[in-house]
Amino acid sequence: MQLVRMMSDGKAVWGEVDGNVVQLMDGMAGPRTGKSVPLDRAALLPPAEPTKIVCVGRNYLDHIRELGNDTGDLPTEPGIFLKGPNTLAEPGGTVDAPDWSENFHFEGELALVIGTQAWNLTPENALAAVAGYTCGLDLTARDRQKTDLQWFRAKAADRFCPLGPVLETDLNPADVRVQTRVNGVTLQDSRTSLMIFDVPAILVYVTRFVTLEPGDVVLTGTPSGVGPLKAGDTVEVEVEGIGVLETRIG
Amino acid sequence: MQLVRMMSDGKAVWGEVDGNVVQLMDGMAGPRTGKSVPLDRAALLPPAEPTKIVCVGRNYLDHIRELGNDTGDLPTEPGIFLKGPNTLAEPGGTVDAPDWSENFHFEGELALVIGTQAWNLTPENALAAVAGYTCGLDLTARDRQKTDLQWFRAKAADRFCPLGPVLETDLNPADVRVQTRVNGVTLQDSRTSLMIFDVPAILVYVTRFVTLEPGDVVLTGTPSGVGPLKAGDTVEVEVEGIGVLETRIG
Repeated sequence: MQLVRMMSDGKAVWGEVDGNVVQLMDGMAGPRTGKSVPLDRAALLPPAEPTKIVCVGRNYLDHIRELGNDTGDLPTEPGIFLKGPNTLAEPGGTVDAPDWSENFHFEGELALVIGTQAWNLTPENALAAVAGYTCGLDLTARDRQKTDLQWFRAKAADRFCPLGPVLETDLNPADVRVQTRVNGVTLQDSRTSLMIFDVPAILVYVTRFVTLEPGDVVLTGTPSGVGPLKAGDTVEVEVEGIGVLETRIG
Repeated sequence: MQLVRMMSDGKAVWGEVDGNVVQLMDGMAGPRTGKSVPLDRAALLPPAEPTKIVCVGRNYLDHIRELGNDTGDLPTEPGIFLKGPNTLAEPGGTVDAPDWSENFHFEGELALVIGTQAWNLTPENALAAVAGYTCGLDLTARDRQKTDLQWFRAKAADRFCPLGPVLETDLNPADVRVQTRVNGVTLQDSRTSLMIFDVPAILVYVTRFVTLEPGDVVLTGTPSGVGPLKAGDTVEVEVEGIGVLETRIG
């Protein structure tokens, strides 16, 4: 099932994609209201209403190497950082390149949205806490990661997390292709099977420390191929089985 | 005016402290409902409903020096990190010492709660965006700050941010005393006038990158005197003009 969040009559509502139309629903898991909207006319929103966005850094070995962070040992625990809800941006939207960074990067990722309050998950029950999967673009001011005490503006500035277009509830995240194209050129092309920590391992680790709430978003890390963006660029993050998240850089 | 948030008939409500009673209100700034509760019987909650908690690290020179982070130059920009809403803990509550840290520290701080959506604030209008001030305890797994990629579990684990007891709407934050006592012994004792970045400067910096929403919390940094906690300890953070935030360590 593919769910979307969209504006309808001035309100944010959930709906289910049904061919070329969106069947509006009463809540994220509620019954259909009977009202439908053509999919190509739907004003999509990020398909999540998080209290926090939990992100994994350095989860693909080739990305660790391209940034010069390879110490010879793989990480023994996931490296986690936070973005706030202010970072969300809608699919098909425009994000302005910040004037306080000289090296504004794309990072395409598999994202997931939590469905039930979760803590102390196990490898066996972790995936049952997931409502669905979507595409995430972890926008990053690469230069500010190095100059700042923590990755605050580097990762958590307004609209630094485009998300969407749909929430796919029926996906096995173990081995799907993740690609990022800039202006039509493929620059990232990997598979989630190459993650150092897979989705259950990430959720087990995070929920040892933090209770995840319904709607919370987890970004699972980016493969190699990251690079700079400039005004006028179009970024597409495609995750196999989900769709394409398109973002323009203003 | 001193506002509190508390449980009443199974719901979280706001109220105004009026001598020994709390006059319940309709919303945070709404009219009184006519119902009142004795203050000493009120089940207080953190006086904020944030979408994010924005924290300043290294904002007092004496604290920078005690942790060995003094490079000879004062920071030229505030060092910011995030906690999520999962970190909030109620005044008078108990927070368990984590079994994954050998060095669990207290950091007493002046905290503020945002009243109106705010971005690109100026030194002149910044304080007008503040709804009020309270006491914050920035619990910190000091050892995990060094071992981890970013300050995630070190700062953002569940209940790592006790907040309260009241929201004081009439405070000039420029020069108030901040003290922390552990088991009755004063271990931190400083004044906000010794901050490297004062409250307006923090808000101007943060809102260049991040839109603050009503209810968002800002922690302004801790002075020197931080140290370890163990099960059975009682921590009191007192900010002049506000009150005392008490937390027990379980």
